[in-house]
Amino acid sequence: MKLSWQRQTLHPKHKFATSQGVSEKRVTIVLRLEHDGIEGMGEIIPSELYGQTLDSAEETLNAAREFLGDDPFVIEPIVQRLIDRFDGQRATIDGIDAALHDWCGKKLEIPVWRLLGLSAPKKQTTFTIGIADTDEIREKVDEALAAGFDALKIKVGAPNDHETLTYIRSVFKGPLFLDANQAWKPEEAPRRIVELARFQPTVIEQPLDRADWQHMVDLRRFKVAPIIADESCERPADVNRLNGFVDGINIKLNKCGGICEARRMITLARGFGMTVMLGCFVSSSLAIAPALTIASLVDHADLDGALLLADDPFAGITRTGSTLQLSDRPGLGVWPVSL
Amino acid sequence: MKLSWQRQTLHPKHKFATSQGVSEKRVTIVLRLEHDGIEGMGEIIPSELYGQTLDSAEETLNAAREFLGDDPFVIEPIVQRLIDRFDGQRATIDGIDAALHDWCGKKLEIPVWRLLGLSAPKKQTTFTIGIADTDEIREKVDEALAAGFDALKIKVGAPNDHETLTYIRSVFKGPLFLDANQAWKPEEAPRRIVELARFQPTVIEQPLDRADWQHMVDLRRFKVAPIIADESCERPADVNRLNGFVDGINIKLNKCGGICEARRMITLARGFGMTVMLGCFVSSSLAIAPALTIASLVDHADLDGALLLADDPFAGITRTGSTLQLSDRPGLGVWPVSL
Repeated sequence: MKLSWQRQTLHPKHKFATSQGVSEKRVTIVLRLEHDGIEGMGEIIPSELYGQTLDSAEETLNAAREFLGDDPFVIEPIVQRLIDRFDGQRATIDGIDAALHDWCGKKLEIPVWRLLGLSAPKKQTTFTIGIADTDEIREKVDEALAAGFDALKIKVGAPNDHETLTYIRSVFKGPLFLDANQAWKPEEAPRRIVELARFQPTVIEQPLDRADWQHMVDLRRFKVAPIIADESCERPADVNRLNGFVDGINIKLNKCGGICEARRMITLARGFGMTVMLGCFVSSSLAIAPALTIASLVDHADLDGALLLADDPFAGITRTGSTLQLSDRPGLGVWPVSL
Repeated sequence: MKLSWQRQTLHPKHKFATSQGVSEKRVTIVLRLEHDGIEGMGEIIPSELYGQTLDSAEETLNAAREFLGDDPFVIEPIVQRLIDRFDGQRATIDGIDAALHDWCGKKLEIPVWRLLGLSAPKKQTTFTIGIADTDEIREKVDEALAAGFDALKIKVGAPNDHETLTYIRSVFKGPLFLDANQAWKPEEAPRRIVELARFQPTVIEQPLDRADWQHMVDLRRFKVAPIIADESCERPADVNRLNGFVDGINIKLNKCGGICEARRMITLARGFGMTVMLGCFVSSSLAIAPALTIASLVDHADLDGALLLADDPFAGITRTGSTLQLSDRPGLGVWPVSL
């Protein structure tokens, strides 16, 4: 197997802010895995929160070569070897996992979701509105609704939350996901959560710092909405740790290391009766495709990472309202159009 | 998809006894799933312990037809629908799961283990010696060792256990699995277990009645060997229930409902740090093949169900010492030779 890669710069349509900061562009890595005349592709989206950078990803790719072997079909053992060696660099493992799956699907001339025994990927996804001043939010919400989105995710944790949400609920009655991205201290969170009840959120994500996961159990008893761990939940072992403390988890392939690990997290979470979300970072459709591939296994999808872009270099995912559908082309079902 | 089936009568080489009874023959069901000119096969081995009979299996097959749909590739949703509807008839679901996997592998012209992203199945398996009088056990053990087996499983729970095991340890130093098949009462089990320590067992399976699973935790503290739940552990939810009470579980595809459910159980058990065994009932190689397909994911395999037969109607599994290897033919890798 031969690996090669290039960095790609993606530009969100709008400046994108969460309680953790603002980003005007995102650089990801497009990975190509070539073997036997077939090319599998995957995207690597490093997360600084977990100590990953573009440089560390490229170092990991260089070091990973010797762990790949010569048969792209044996994905499970390959991923296990990579996790044993590069546990902290799961964003890179995710890219390799995606490229291996893409390769196998292309080799067998079937979509990866068929390879995995799953039904055709067609899933409602929330559309995310970043933190902004109230006028800008009004504009974004109106634009999203005009574009047909029928499930929204709002980043909360700003002083104007209440004003923003009051506006949104005046124009939108559908599913409303709230994501605090670790914004609150344990002592203020109960009050914040109770204040959010009137907006009837579908879920509330990561209200506390990722290290404060044990306090999330205190927020469950208000029964405002399921409390979902995102930043606190990276990999399968975290699901066991979080059991009892949260109502659900948000799985992201670049956090956990790809489809193999995500399926394990889904199985574990289901075993504990947890709500399961599948999320993403801002990325091209190349990274959305593997998540969409397994989205039929989860309760809620937040896979708008490529919808937020002005310049998605990959095609193959179509949208009707908030529902994303993956093509039935062999492999991951997406292809480069402007790389 | 078209289902058809026939009963097959299998004859063990030797009369086979456990602490639960003696069997001189076993009747199983060979299932054929035909679609698009390709035939997938699976075997159904009902378990009376779970209220399953050959008749209930055939009734379930008749009723299952309308839940199959028209695409054998969407195995996960099909199995989920069958479990939702026929939870108590998992032996039948196992046969359907196997036939679906076999079909997909044949359609794609690859072995099922490649479809699942796993390495080539090659696994040491224990060879089981049933309960018998001491002379007969000597004979069986000598025969097994002469035939090259290098891992043994002994059914315990008879009055001559000590005598039997003393003989075995005088001629065999390798891995020795002990299986009590629910033989002991909670009050006698600690003494029994401690008495077994000198024989250095690799594991001790199901010492207590399946309903007494909560008492298995008391037996762990003697640290004689990992205490494995077999009869107490049927399906994924049981793995969560047993967490903390046992050291490991013995998964059997006909108990849990096939490859999909077994993989979930493996993931759950790994999440809890449990030892994972993969076992079987007396059956033809048709039922051993799907288990061997996923055997690379477990710690210990006890897949001698077809080795015990005088008249295995299926070929495709070869043995070197105690190591079983599955062919690389498309599908499950076994084929009928005398059906």
